[in-house]
Amino acid sequence: MHVAIPLYPGFTALDAVGPYTVLAFAPGVTVTFVAGEAGPVTDDRGTLTLTATAGYADLPRPDVVVVPGGVGTFAALEDRALVDWIRTAHEHARWTTSVCSGSLLLGAAGLLGGLKATTHWAVLDHLSRYGAEPVSERVVTQGRIVTAAGVSAGIDMALALLAAASDEETARAVQLVIEYDPEPPFPMDRGLAERAIGLLV
Amino acid sequence: MHVAIPLYPGFTALDAVGPYTVLAFAPGVTVTFVAGEAGPVTDDRGTLTLTATAGYADLPRPDVVVVPGGVGTFAALEDRALVDWIRTAHEHARWTTSVCSGSLLLGAAGLLGGLKATTHWAVLDHLSRYGAEPVSERVVTQGRIVTAAGVSAGIDMALALLAAASDEETARAVQLVIEYDPEPPFPMDRGLAERAIGLLV
Repeated sequence: MHVAIPLYPGFTALDAVGPYTVLAFAPGVTVTFVAGEAGPVTDDRGTLTLTATAGYADLPRPDVVVVPGGVGTFAALEDRALVDWIRTAHEHARWTTSVCSGSLLLGAAGLLGGLKATTHWAVLDHLSRYGAEPVSERVVTQGRIVTAAGVSAGIDMALALLAAASDEETARAVQLVIEYDPEPPFPMDRGLAERAIGLLV
Repeated sequence: MHVAIPLYPGFTALDAVGPYTVLAFAPGVTVTFVAGEAGPVTDDRGTLTLTATAGYADLPRPDVVVVPGGVGTFAALEDRALVDWIRTAHEHARWTTSVCSGSLLLGAAGLLGGLKATTHWAVLDHLSRYGAEPVSERVVTQGRIVTAAGVSAGIDMALALLAAASDEETARAVQLVIEYDPEPPFPMDRGLAERAIGLLV
């Protein structure tokens, strides 16, 4: 199974690396970071650089696509090469997935019309621009399209995807490898939304 | 606050990028990936390459050190430049921390003698080689030394560290930014330990 994760300037690192780590530990799975052309791509903090090892033209038919989000998503919506690649890759992909604001790129590629979808809470209402029905859930599966909520939700999504793509025991073994038995130190405090959005800009 | 994350060949991507993403979203925090010398470093799956933007000599006195683990940790234990940098950086650091098998590197640097510490479940008994008392907890704080369990535990550790380094509201705001309200699809199944270890080699 070949998984492609497109990178664009201003992606959020954990959006890409959470699903990457889950899927790359699974047997028989190859994960490739792709971009317009192979080379370094820097995240939305400006301090992490991941290497894309293939260009879009090198990997037109991955089995699975995982589109990360990030502060750079809005600029990426204008990146025709990226949006066109998502659209054409989806034609043959077994699953096309997103983390966080990555779902807006699925929307721009025309994949979300009439479907339920999710994204980062701060941009949930943007989904309706693409004909999607925004839902506030951790992971939303609609046939071959799977969207996840913000940033860390990509880990949950990738484990569920792996169970569907291979078998549940494999997914459970990977969950054990990454010791994913989370103990968040605080409850989610949605009253801090304004302060949180301030950290994004 | 300057955070340094040392990278070495065969680190586990999420060990480094989980804490990175948490800390890099916090106001007033700069995170730098360091290595023997600046340049690309590849992870333990062989398919993810992160760029170290500084060498150890460029960053001798970070405020916080976060040492990731990975399949490459055992080889890294013989990397004198890395182990010596951890030892000397700790002399002035406010906190020296590890994720997963990264704690073995703290042990090799002589920092764990007589302290409780944790690591990835698969190597927990190795900690006693360094005079540490292995404990099976998610995050273990002993003064200026904080060790976390396997891979994903670095996210929990970094949020707790951020609350201590700044204030709890900042940590809660970052937790909201990364929408860290996890829903693991499966319970932890420790009966799959042998299968999980098979995925690591």
